[in-house]
Amino acid sequence: METDTAMAVNTTQDETRTHSDQDAWRELARQFRVDSIRVAANANSGHPTSSMSAAELMAVLVSKYFRYRVDEPKSANNDHLIFSKGHASPLYYSILLAIGAIDEPEMETYRLKGSRLEGHPTPVLPFVDVATGSLGQGLPIGVGLALTGKRLDRLDYRTWILCGDSEMAEGSIWEALAAASFENLDNLTAIIDVNRLGQTGPTRYEWDLDVYANRIGSFGWHTIEIDGHDVAAVDAAYAEAIATKGKPTAIIARTIKGKGVAWEENKNGFHGKPVDDSDDAIRELGGRSSIRIVPPSPDEEAHAHVFAAGELKLPTYEKGAKVATRKAFGDALAALGAADESIVVLDGEVGNSTYTETFGNRFPERFFQMYIAEQQMISAAVGMQVRGWKPFSATFAAFLSRAYDFIRMAAVSQANLYLCGSHAGVSIGEDGPSQMGLEDIASLRAVHGSTVLYPSDANQTARLLALMANNKGINYMRTTRQATPVIYGADEKFEIGGSRVLRSTDTDQVTIVGAGITLGEALKAADTLAADGIRARVIDLYSVKPLDTKTLIAAARATGRVVTVEDHWAEGGLGEAVFSALAEAGATVEGKLLAVRIMPGSATPEEELQMADIDADAIVKAARALVGGKDSK
Amino acid sequence: METDTAMAVNTTQDETRTHSDQDAWRELARQFRVDSIRVAANANSGHPTSSMSAAELMAVLVSKYFRYRVDEPKSANNDHLIFSKGHASPLYYSILLAIGAIDEPEMETYRLKGSRLEGHPTPVLPFVDVATGSLGQGLPIGVGLALTGKRLDRLDYRTWILCGDSEMAEGSIWEALAAASFENLDNLTAIIDVNRLGQTGPTRYEWDLDVYANRIGSFGWHTIEIDGHDVAAVDAAYAEAIATKGKPTAIIARTIKGKGVAWEENKNGFHGKPVDDSDDAIRELGGRSSIRIVPPSPDEEAHAHVFAAGELKLPTYEKGAKVATRKAFGDALAALGAADESIVVLDGEVGNSTYTETFGNRFPERFFQMYIAEQQMISAAVGMQVRGWKPFSATFAAFLSRAYDFIRMAAVSQANLYLCGSHAGVSIGEDGPSQMGLEDIASLRAVHGSTVLYPSDANQTARLLALMANNKGINYMRTTRQATPVIYGADEKFEIGGSRVLRSTDTDQVTIVGAGITLGEALKAADTLAADGIRARVIDLYSVKPLDTKTLIAAARATGRVVTVEDHWAEGGLGEAVFSALAEAGATVEGKLLAVRIMPGSATPEEELQMADIDADAIVKAARALVGGKDSK
Repeated sequence: METDTAMAVNTTQDETRTHSDQDAWRELARQFRVDSIRVAANANSGHPTSSMSAAELMAVLVSKYFRYRVDEPKSANNDHLIFSKGHASPLYYSILLAIGAIDEPEMETYRLKGSRLEGHPTPVLPFVDVATGSLGQGLPIGVGLALTGKRLDRLDYRTWILCGDSEMAEGSIWEALAAASFENLDNLTAIIDVNRLGQTGPTRYEWDLDVYANRIGSFGWHTIEIDGHDVAAVDAAYAEAIATKGKPTAIIARTIKGKGVAWEENKNGFHGKPVDDSDDAIRELGGRSSIRIVPPSPDEEAHAHVFAAGELKLPTYEKGAKVATRKAFGDALAALGAADESIVVLDGEVGNSTYTETFGNRFPERFFQMYIAEQQMISAAVGMQVRGWKPFSATFAAFLSRAYDFIRMAAVSQANLYLCGSHAGVSIGEDGPSQMGLEDIASLRAVHGSTVLYPSDANQTARLLALMANNKGINYMRTTRQATPVIYGADEKFEIGGSRVLRSTDTDQVTIVGAGITLGEALKAADTLAADGIRARVIDLYSVKPLDTKTLIAAARATGRVVTVEDHWAEGGLGEAVFSALAEAGATVEGKLLAVRIMPGSATPEEELQMADIDADAIVKAARALVGGKDSK
Repeated sequence: METDTAMAVNTTQDETRTHSDQDAWRELARQFRVDSIRVAANANSGHPTSSMSAAELMAVLVSKYFRYRVDEPKSANNDHLIFSKGHASPLYYSILLAIGAIDEPEMETYRLKGSRLEGHPTPVLPFVDVATGSLGQGLPIGVGLALTGKRLDRLDYRTWILCGDSEMAEGSIWEALAAASFENLDNLTAIIDVNRLGQTGPTRYEWDLDVYANRIGSFGWHTIEIDGHDVAAVDAAYAEAIATKGKPTAIIARTIKGKGVAWEENKNGFHGKPVDDSDDAIRELGGRSSIRIVPPSPDEEAHAHVFAAGELKLPTYEKGAKVATRKAFGDALAALGAADESIVVLDGEVGNSTYTETFGNRFPERFFQMYIAEQQMISAAVGMQVRGWKPFSATFAAFLSRAYDFIRMAAVSQANLYLCGSHAGVSIGEDGPSQMGLEDIASLRAVHGSTVLYPSDANQTARLLALMANNKGINYMRTTRQATPVIYGADEKFEIGGSRVLRSTDTDQVTIVGAGITLGEALKAADTLAADGIRARVIDLYSVKPLDTKTLIAAARATGRVVTVEDHWAEGGLGEAVFSALAEAGATVEGKLLAVRIMPGSATPEEELQMADIDADAIVKAARALVGGKDSK
């Protein structure tokens, strides 16, 4: 049993420790405090006091319970440890130093330029699974890891999450608590460091541990209340957590912020700054030491479960048929899932709208219902991809905004996420503005290293999704609610960063750039313009990020006039991407950016496009004005 | 006492009702069902089955407990009713019809173009306080209203929130439950319509009312479990809620989705669509009726509390001093608060970083600590502005992303919000990417009707904040962590939609556009370029939205070359705003968009600017390349 795993100990500086030695844990905790103080002092910034409160909690954990091969941080059987309170990074790095993951020279680079020891942990360090620092994210990500352990990998690694008490106010924590008990995640342990003080003052419940225990208990968790500085109690709590089956355990630990330095203990005003008189503080604590430990070893025999995989057979659609891209997304996702056993799907209880239900019906073991909890849906996906799974998460594009902070942080975590937002734009019609994704392109483009795809027909959707599934980073596909005509053949090729010129002559007078629902409007507009004798080039900008600047520049140079049209707010969308790329290329144009500039209400899809001035008529009018305007000069 | 208020009744179609008549409530509920079915059938879309489950809950409420003057929807003593489950809009409009707020012809416009009866309620209707339809928002907004009743208005109006059971999975609901009990909001009642079925299938806890009651009870609420179709039980529950002092009450009602139409009752697959065979359904229910009721009257005597106000004395700063704009924001906010008694401030437990603590120390009665719960912070602000207060909410710019869906919806709610995001950009330095707001300009620009201001010095911050405080819509100010030089005099004038040309000659060769932290870099760069004989115009683009296109166009035409520089991702920020505005004006330029394109780590602020290529050196290099490039043509 894992609790019996011996703590291996290196003897340094004549120190010899014995198995389960409480004195050793106290010594290690003391060292963690000293190391936290000195690195923050060295950097002249950081959160030593928030580190010091959890020193015993972590000393016992890494000495006796946390099964980890330091030499192989990605080993399949390693436990996971996430600092949901990422600001306690001095403590985290003190652990890494003690287990030999980093050395003393690196320890002294904390928060300095180029250091892997950033202000808050990030996966620049191979020991860090995910970036934290935005509170309330570690626990929901831990739910994703624990779910993966139970239902995907089917390995017995444990996930340990160190939470702060302040972050218990975040709703995402309660989404996680609900999901974890519902899924019977007894491989998940939350360690709540109740040090009573937040950044500006006391937390809402200070040291009322019962409030936490009652609430977390009512959420279906086993709870244990302890003095977080009593190593025997901490030890017993971990043993009890491991022994508790069928439900996750929360250890609610009363601790003292700044513990160990008399003049800062349990006092307000010392958050997020180096300890005053750090040399004195270290002296008070007994000075520096260099205890090194080896955490218990994981079982090396077990292998992660692998699902069966077959051949890829993407769906195809007849040209001229009317198919919603959201439907094609669902079909293609199921097809990709059949061929790639690492694909898993998370639903925000709208799977019959996004069409992830197609995958769910076919591969129920790889389908995760996260209910109406978008933050947890994204967090779980982040946890799953840590373990090498490819998580696709889908909801209405509008509701991805609920998880924006989680997507932002996923990029810092270097995560590979696959997102789909359906019901984009005013063209959803009757449901009204609350359901219309009109800011998704802007917000998802503004994520580091993201990819934003916006297909206009069913065949293109399937092809692009296949490409997206092999792309790294934060990937986003925008789909349309209503059925639109299939305009591409089933074997046409597309690429991430590509575009498609659909109408073109050598004497085009204006370029029209659309994507998704507006591409059909652009084509209709081109027909109308042609009847007037105005030659319009039409570009399908299905890859909104990265952008096919080459094709855009060529069109701009050839026509001198560009109309962009998108079912999205005017800010941060397709139009701004195009016009700033052209300006950077020195490809000067007269431009018109057609986008949604009114607050829409309910109406039919056609009426919505018309009222927002993004339909074929609006494009014709804009193109005529540009062509006429230039000619009349 | 309010429970004794008589139910006034109009007699129509020979129907006469008596006080507290259970038959009358049942009849009204029956009518609500019929009306819900027929409007959805008429629109061929909508959520009748989700409306039918709550018919008795609402019939009793509006007949006996909901104190409301239909002829004066903004009356200070009116109760508030929010459909957190906004998709039950057919039920909501059925109520409005019954109380005479809308008439039958308007009822038939449901979901049609131009109708005030949108798919989900919005304040296009004067009876609607806030838009809903993104689940989990009504209750946290209700907390804002109830807080306002207790601590600001000091009136005894009640706030009633109809919640769905699916939305109980949203973390924001639990943020609200925690805040409401902590603030002893006994003027708030949550009515939870537990109809067991979500959009795609059963909810997580189906009809296990005890799970809800235990959890909500552990969060400090009084809970009452009832059969939501038993009007006597519903009546008793409301009376108990009103009688319960010191804590909010949740009525947890077991209901049947589709109740009243045998072939859809409690069956999956009927979410969000008209009832099958609606004529038969209406016949089964007993046919149409036109019961009209008058809700109980609120007390008309009470007046909202008014705080004392003094004179406006904005802070001023010496030119050349170094002051962080976040500090100036705090100073100015306190000054504005002294003069405008309607200003209130909400903190996300970082008030000593954003400097809202300056206001909080001076005006504790108008300062609200929302702890680390950004969704609740924004929701409470939305609730407060419903009642005419001016809520300023501040946290790190990065953490506003946590509440993005709430800000998006606030725009649909036509809310006036005043947001501040501090710690913008890589220039915060050592704390690392999790704390750096790098997507805030893109995401906040992409909010309908928003205003985005980004001051570069302390005097400008104070002046702009004074303007912002009198602006409508969603207002956002971005502030900088570290101290920067004061470059403007204290009496300089700025305007929303303005900019400031800081360097200019008639023969400028290049325009440099910066704002906030990059303005200082732009000025340094201009000095370096001047020494090289390159004349650069420098524009302080402090109003990022709306944009001073006139000044930008003039500069672009004069110089032909534009470098934009921002401490923000390249997408959706200042640069894209500038270059697309120029393209739309036909003001053609060669451009360079300097922005953050690497994932930053920890370093000093100066090193961060340098590594991200947005410091003076990078600007000089870009300007030289443009000038050289054009000259060498």
